[in-house]
Amino acid sequence: MLYFSCDYAEGCHSRVLKALSDSNMISTPGYGEDDFCRAAKTKIKEYINCPNADIYFLVGGTQTNQVVIDSMLSNYDGVVAAATGHVAVHEAGAIEYSGHKVITLPAHQGKLDADELKQMLVDHYADDSSEHMVNPGMVYISYPTEYGTLYSRTELEAVSSVCAQYNIPLFIDGARLAYGLAAQDDLSMADIASYADVFYIGGTKVGALFGEAVVFTKGNTPKHMITQIKQHGALLAKGRLLGVQFAEMFTDDLYMEMGSHAIEQANKIRECLKTKGYTLFMENPTNQIFVVMDNESLKEFGQKVVYGFWEKYDESHTVVRIATSWATSDDSVEALMAIL
Amino acid sequence: MLYFSCDYAEGCHSRVLKALSDSNMISTPGYGEDDFCRAAKTKIKEYINCPNADIYFLVGGTQTNQVVIDSMLSNYDGVVAAATGHVAVHEAGAIEYSGHKVITLPAHQGKLDADELKQMLVDHYADDSSEHMVNPGMVYISYPTEYGTLYSRTELEAVSSVCAQYNIPLFIDGARLAYGLAAQDDLSMADIASYADVFYIGGTKVGALFGEAVVFTKGNTPKHMITQIKQHGALLAKGRLLGVQFAEMFTDDLYMEMGSHAIEQANKIRECLKTKGYTLFMENPTNQIFVVMDNESLKEFGQKVVYGFWEKYDESHTVVRIATSWATSDDSVEALMAIL
Amino acid sequence: MLYFSCDYAEGCHSRVLKALSDSNMISTPGYGEDDFCRAAKTKIKEYINCPNADIYFLVGGTQTNQVVIDSMLSNYDGVVAAATGHVAVHEAGAIEYSGHKVITLPAHQGKLDADELKQMLVDHYADDSSEHMVNPGMVYISYPTEYGTLYSRTELEAVSSVCAQYNIPLFIDGARLAYGLAAQDDLSMADIASYADVFYIGGTKVGALFGEAVVFTKGNTPKHMITQIKQHGALLAKGRLLGVQFAEMFTDDLYMEMGSHAIEQANKIRECLKTKGYTLFMENPTNQIFVVMDNESLKEFGQKVVYGFWEKYDESHTVVRIATSWATSDDSVEALMAIL
Amino acid sequence: MLYFSCDYAEGCHSRVLKALSDSNMISTPGYGEDDFCRAAKTKIKEYINCPNADIYFLVGGTQTNQVVIDSMLSNYDGVVAAATGHVAVHEAGAIEYSGHKVITLPAHQGKLDADELKQMLVDHYADDSSEHMVNPGMVYISYPTEYGTLYSRTELEAVSSVCAQYNIPLFIDGARLAYGLAAQDDLSMADIASYADVFYIGGTKVGALFGEAVVFTKGNTPKHMITQIKQHGALLAKGRLLGVQFAEMFTDDLYMEMGSHAIEQANKIRECLKTKGYTLFMENPTNQIFVVMDNESLKEFGQKVVYGFWEKYDESHTVVRIATSWATSDDSVEALMAIL
Repeated sequence: MLYFSCDYAEGCHSRVLKALSDSNMISTPGYGEDDFCRAAKTKIKEYINCPNADIYFLVGGTQTNQVVIDSMLSNYDGVVAAATGHVAVHEAGAIEYSGHKVITLPAHQGKLDADELKQMLVDHYADDSSEHMVNPGMVYISYPTEYGTLYSRTELEAVSSVCAQYNIPLFIDGARLAYGLAAQDDLSMADIASYADVFYIGGTKVGALFGEAVVFTKGNTPKHMITQIKQHGALLAKGRLLGVQFAEMFTDDLYMEMGSHAIEQANKIRECLKTKGYTLFMENPTNQIFVVMDNESLKEFGQKVVYGFWEKYDESHTVVRIATSWATSDDSVEALMAIL
Repeated sequence: MLYFSCDYAEGCHSRVLKALSDSNMISTPGYGEDDFCRAAKTKIKEYINCPNADIYFLVGGTQTNQVVIDSMLSNYDGVVAAATGHVAVHEAGAIEYSGHKVITLPAHQGKLDADELKQMLVDHYADDSSEHMVNPGMVYISYPTEYGTLYSRTELEAVSSVCAQYNIPLFIDGARLAYGLAAQDDLSMADIASYADVFYIGGTKVGALFGEAVVFTKGNTPKHMITQIKQHGALLAKGRLLGVQFAEMFTDDLYMEMGSHAIEQANKIRECLKTKGYTLFMENPTNQIFVVMDNESLKEFGQKVVYGFWEKYDESHTVVRIATSWATSDDSVEALMAIL
Repeated sequence: MLYFSCDYAEGCHSRVLKALSDSNMISTPGYGEDDFCRAAKTKIKEYINCPNADIYFLVGGTQTNQVVIDSMLSNYDGVVAAATGHVAVHEAGAIEYSGHKVITLPAHQGKLDADELKQMLVDHYADDSSEHMVNPGMVYISYPTEYGTLYSRTELEAVSSVCAQYNIPLFIDGARLAYGLAAQDDLSMADIASYADVFYIGGTKVGALFGEAVVFTKGNTPKHMITQIKQHGALLAKGRLLGVQFAEMFTDDLYMEMGSHAIEQANKIRECLKTKGYTLFMENPTNQIFVVMDNESLKEFGQKVVYGFWEKYDESHTVVRIATSWATSDDSVEALMAIL
Repeated sequence: MLYFSCDYAEGCHSRVLKALSDSNMISTPGYGEDDFCRAAKTKIKEYINCPNADIYFLVGGTQTNQVVIDSMLSNYDGVVAAATGHVAVHEAGAIEYSGHKVITLPAHQGKLDADELKQMLVDHYADDSSEHMVNPGMVYISYPTEYGTLYSRTELEAVSSVCAQYNIPLFIDGARLAYGLAAQDDLSMADIASYADVFYIGGTKVGALFGEAVVFTKGNTPKHMITQIKQHGALLAKGRLLGVQFAEMFTDDLYMEMGSHAIEQANKIRECLKTKGYTLFMENPTNQIFVVMDNESLKEFGQKVVYGFWEKYDESHTVVRIATSWATSDDSVEALMAIL
């Protein structure tokens, strides 16, 4: 069986596994107060060229979104997101659970439009009833988006600039950050750090066993951050596991190497799909491919390939997600292309 | 100055005031455990022909929506509402504050469409990711809507029937219930009670000093309801004030009489506006009139009339709300029509 | 039947009722943006000699405690209170509902001890695990306490000074403020304002129909306070009702006059109880008297007097609350004393 | 440097590490829907002799406590715990954050007393004001307690029986379950399962990299449990990591073997301490030893041993925690005893 349904189907990259094994019996303090975490933070700060960044390691995407958003917002604030944003749709209401509204704007291939964002803010503050409404206290975007699309540098700049103008922090969800950066030549992680007030570097979907690195870029860490993380049930006792993994991933460019690998594999498949006349549901340059398949063929396809069901396209067609990752082997790509 | 900006600009109907004055020095137990509350509940149950209804009195609309929704939902539930619903827009995130997402559907002149509701539920339960999404645990509609429009009996029946089919409670926000029922010949409060699993009879906007009567119609009161009300800071120490008012409003049909009065006054103004060629922003039969005025005339108009700003229509026009109420006198209507 | 069970058994003082009646048909803007509220705020600020105070009117005690505490605390903060504090025991978890722990200290006749408070803070900040614990973000005391006792000026000063030293706001719950101040010669409401960072002037239990005035004394109003009040379902549409009442209560010293009245009545009863050899459960100088009665006598007593059950004293005795108020007539006091 | 400060200072047992390594590149579905999780659940159900148990894997202790308590309680419920319980003190308010009060009872060497628990429930339900108070909706105990003490079988039975009588679920926090069971001859994990309505088997502190197995023992799993876990940010994408670890720990009795190992090492140290005349702060039979040391000796001790600071004993003495674990080697125990 070929496995292309998602980018979290395996454990971790062999180098990450080796680092965990090598450090396994070393005794360290708990809760991230260890040398591995310190080393990882230093490496990341250098990599993003942001010496004053403040970094926290958490365990998963939804947890990270909840902790970051809730710790940065006040009671009266909500977070603005595209209607298709992960926080708006697929986190079981984790943001509302923490008391905050997700204020949605139309999604354009998964992306917020900076002009629409600005217009919403203009309208909000001009509204006589604005004190009876949730205050837009943060802007959330995902890079890549849930549809695998990417903001261009110009688009990012525009969103970031609207946020700066209204003094609203911009939060970039980088669950698949490596896959985005590997697919976009003119943008670096340092650029992401400069556009965002806070962002996270996704590990779970990019070669770590688990783990996300939250980066506060502007001396804007919420107070008592450790207490807040603990309060959300998100403080890992053996925090060093996160430090070990991120330290390894930010050694010899492993993180980006894993990103590039997935993009190369995705591009081969994308090319093959186009050659064979398949319809892509949405064009994007990253590791997730959304392809329209007729239901008859899909039955057979499903016998050989584990794919991701995305949505019904019409009565006789389905949108299917084919995802590559750091773990996708040449063999499995060849095998998949033979089946397509 | 003429006052037409809203329906909560004055105190209460003279009969309500008299009832409060007459009972003022009578000693009663607190927290609604008094004879006035008991009497009011009996009268309401008779009026809506629902002997098993369970009734609680609260102080305002947002409070009522928050308490009802939060007490009926489980953690994993959200409430479905029209995108223009009060709970979705103008309650400062009170529902999210209590941990629940407001799941929005398109508004059609302020109303949910039963077919769209059904399709959303079908899609939700068919979605592989539904366990990662907020569960639709209640449907919220307002009658009249925030735009003064009304669901027809057929429309109400359709929404109610979808809810029943999916075993999801239907909550009808009746902040202006009397104004709706007075404007709709073929629907009674007993009908509302039969369509809704829970609804509230708005007092604040219909002649009470303050107060809303929440009615659980189907033996479906949440457990420890008094504790839940208290926990939301919504348990009035002198609960009898609410009992006194509702008992009076449900004596000799005062509640509906106040509703009819406002509709008659609104209809005169509506007629006058049409005669004079004004454009209505949205047609509706209740006590709120949304009219488009050009900004120049509006300046002058504003010198004489306190109106409600609704929204910008275009560069040179504004949508204005003119609201009548139980308190609107013939004289002020005459005066307004002379100005228009 | 004589009514001595509580201080919220009747409506409101005749002057307050008259003010409500007189203003009943005047049209005003909603949500507290009216002249009555403005006037009331001016009067209170003058009365407490605190020109920069910022004042908000809310509807009841639990609501006020919840809104004040939640709006002033950050996520990681809890509120320190005596173990017998209203917020700790009798608010159905309203504070925890808003996400904050009530950190309790031993109660000494209902009061916090300043030294114990200080020691707790010293210990907290010295604790290696303090980041894994709730941060003490506010101190809550009630004046009078739930047992009718009063902090002496020295005690208040001591608590206030510990708070100042640790930069933790002191919140004084004044649900029965007038009864406390009337019983304590050397303390004024202006003193309360100087010791507290925020306090509230209770109306519900002192002659208003309902209403509490929250006073932020040090330019420390939380941001977007109206939004936060709305979000808690606590923004009264006809806010002017609160303004009308407080404006009247702060005219010609009515508020304190009502306080003094209750204390005089209580003192007569207290004297009588002592003369007749009753045991007081707890000595206090305010409007609540806690007296130990044997269960046999109590049965008979209960035929003629509505009293408050406080707690079981032993197998054959009960602690009973006898409360006077602004409404307690000379006749009823005479009648009660005849029965005792 | 010798490491005796806690039981989470290393990674995981070599067999667990091998299982993670061996399964690393196998592709599985996410979110716990994999064969490893299924196998682990089957093994645990057999081990506890509870075929109808329903099991969920989470990542850490505080997270587990928050998710279990919040998913089982209704809004109006709080959880009863000893004043020294982890949920009451060291979880940064995670329970209150989820809206629920922790109702504390006196701790007796870390334990609840069944009679006191019963009395509290009797008093609560007899209290006229009980509807104004938080409802006791669950009882939480930890086994072993935070002080390393154990409930005897009789004590457990008594607490469980009070809970059953009042129809309140009993939740047993088993963060260090193996260490408790290994130290108590007459109690098995099956017994724990029979006394508890829900409990968790701690992995983080007993040889797993991380992970806790929540067991609902009585067909009492909260509805939409996956949604609730997700909503708390607690649903691990690579859920299989938890399945792999627990499957291994419940193979050939590894979990209990690790428990026994720690107890043997602790007993050697305990014996040595007694022989050398040290004062134990609290007697207990499990893997945590609380010993009183004078501050002068402690300075030197701290040069060679990483210990846990517990609390100040008096001006010149300190309570120190010495913890053994699955990872404590014979060599380090020898070395420690040589230093003592």
